[in-house]
Amino acid sequence: MKTYRYEENPIVKPVDVKPYHPGFEVIGAFNAGVARNGDEVLLLLRVAERPFSGDPDIVKVPIVRPESGRLEVMDLRRDDPRYDFSDPRVVRDVTSGVGFAYLTSLSYIRIARSKDGRNFSVDDAPFLYPSDASESFGIEDPRVTQIGDVYYVYYSAVSPTGIGVTLVSTRDFRQVERHGMIFCPDNKDVVIFPERIGGKYYALHRPTMKSTGSPEIWVAESDNLLYWGNHRHLIGLRPGMWDGGRIGGGAVPIRTSEGWLELYHGATREHRYCMGAVLLDLEDPSKVLARSDVPVLEPEMQYEREGFFGDVVFSCGALADGDTVRMYYGVADSSMACAELSLREILAGLVRV
Amino acid sequence: MKTYRYEENPIVKPVDVKPYHPGFEVIGAFNAGVARNGDEVLLLLRVAERPFSGDPDIVKVPIVRPESGRLEVMDLRRDDPRYDFSDPRVVRDVTSGVGFAYLTSLSYIRIARSKDGRNFSVDDAPFLYPSDASESFGIEDPRVTQIGDVYYVYYSAVSPTGIGVTLVSTRDFRQVERHGMIFCPDNKDVVIFPERIGGKYYALHRPTMKSTGSPEIWVAESDNLLYWGNHRHLIGLRPGMWDGGRIGGGAVPIRTSEGWLELYHGATREHRYCMGAVLLDLEDPSKVLARSDVPVLEPEMQYEREGFFGDVVFSCGALADGDTVRMYYGVADSSMACAELSLREILAGLVRV
Repeated sequence: MKTYRYEENPIVKPVDVKPYHPGFEVIGAFNAGVARNGDEVLLLLRVAERPFSGDPDIVKVPIVRPESGRLEVMDLRRDDPRYDFSDPRVVRDVTSGVGFAYLTSLSYIRIARSKDGRNFSVDDAPFLYPSDASESFGIEDPRVTQIGDVYYVYYSAVSPTGIGVTLVSTRDFRQVERHGMIFCPDNKDVVIFPERIGGKYYALHRPTMKSTGSPEIWVAESDNLLYWGNHRHLIGLRPGMWDGGRIGGGAVPIRTSEGWLELYHGATREHRYCMGAVLLDLEDPSKVLARSDVPVLEPEMQYEREGFFGDVVFSCGALADGDTVRMYYGVADSSMACAELSLREILAGLVRV
Repeated sequence: MKTYRYEENPIVKPVDVKPYHPGFEVIGAFNAGVARNGDEVLLLLRVAERPFSGDPDIVKVPIVRPESGRLEVMDLRRDDPRYDFSDPRVVRDVTSGVGFAYLTSLSYIRIARSKDGRNFSVDDAPFLYPSDASESFGIEDPRVTQIGDVYYVYYSAVSPTGIGVTLVSTRDFRQVERHGMIFCPDNKDVVIFPERIGGKYYALHRPTMKSTGSPEIWVAESDNLLYWGNHRHLIGLRPGMWDGGRIGGGAVPIRTSEGWLELYHGATREHRYCMGAVLLDLEDPSKVLARSDVPVLEPEMQYEREGFFGDVVFSCGALADGDTVRMYYGVADSSMACAELSLREILAGLVRV
């Protein structure tokens, strides 16, 4: 596979983003949804900001209060035996048995714009900011599906009640219409197909289970994009392979003559995140035709291997133009990079199932 | 609260149900959905059957093979260090980190019929039986919502890929139309309201999260009963109270002059299951008006306290007639019982929120 990573990579870094909150630092500008709008390429960045802590004994956690919409910062003592601070991304409450109790940063969505798809400038203000109780810990990892002249933007909404996926729509990336949570917790990594198939809309989604089952990719259908059903398990983990630990949808599916090409992420049980591909039937996307035995992109460059959470390449959007797939991807939960891949080569590398 | 438990309780017991599978014993006939059909009361029983094991060193686990539709029984050695057999209901794989690996019994749905609502006879054959890969570990805990002359029956579909909720419909409890999985894993305890409200259908559901959040009650809406969205968190756990460990929808909501009355189950962290109530706004069921501080029914009788999994009362359906609420409920994951409660007293006992 010939992979052309941009020499400019990372194309957006935390230092390129002015903090929105006084007293905060930007620690991540990553996992961006991608859209073409007029003559611009837009990256809908997940920007993560963390409160400065002057005191090494204090961990500060940000929460947007649903009542006031105001950002508050809580101080947790590092020696408090109720908490486990070993994961830099989250604070676990060891007494509760639930996954995490707080996040160490607040994420929201901010737009970076470019004429050439390589040189970006970042808007000063957020495009989407936590707006209700279901988003009080932040909003993360947006994807954008354009249908006609409407852009559907959907993202992980994180709060103490769980992580679900919420949908908004816009025509101009200024005015936004809210459509509520479309996939209830525990869910992430939704990608909505860019057209109706047999009269229905389709989406891939990634539930995470506690009772039984693994973080794998499911397919659902809809007649209005707001309400979803007919959930079916699509593809599973492959123990020992690059996607043996967890998988989830990545870029919005690309229509090709051979089928719908989905660039998805897979991680090992040791949390090494790669990008691979699965090919779905054009008429029935619940039918799997072929899949990558080896990744189409894996963390190799220093900026992919080192960062806030290293050894991660994680795409939320790609632009296809002829044989060129320009895959934008988050690196190490820190920055954005881009690589150009050959559509023909990706398809040729898939193994029929 | 005056509670009239039937003298006949339990009204259906495992011994009343002939095993459907040769070489199996019926260990449960419980957690039944309830419907009125003509002059009959129907209980849609969850029947659990377990393969006999002659060998105390062997635990047998049943699986319906999705390819053939045939029931197979696997033998697991009790001394196999990969497995944890401490919970009588499930087998855990200690190496995998997922919740459970197998169930020790296979559940399916069977109808019990009665003219008086107290004396039931059980059909010989299943009404609903696992039908695809998403149901290979069984189908459980049905609820029935009647809308016009169509009965919507929905139940937990259990398989290695997770536990979701699947919908079918029938007019006569013979012919069944399948509508797929309406709530993806991890979800249970769905109750669909019996009429449109402001033009939309509503349901309560109970996602279970791994990342963060607790097993609590959510509300969703739909325009066709098949596709669901606008998920919102409705009510949460109350630590230290009867519903401090987990909660979930129980009976199909009952329309009263004061609001929608939902009889829901709550358990402590020690797994003691009681029934309580929450009152929701008639025009907007996402609005909580009042809630039980104490249960409306708790496990007190011997048949509620002792059984396959003791200290459990768990209703999946009730019939309201004037002031009388005839609440059918599973006891100790073993049998069915019924109690008559006063609607007026339930409402009077609620605490405004």
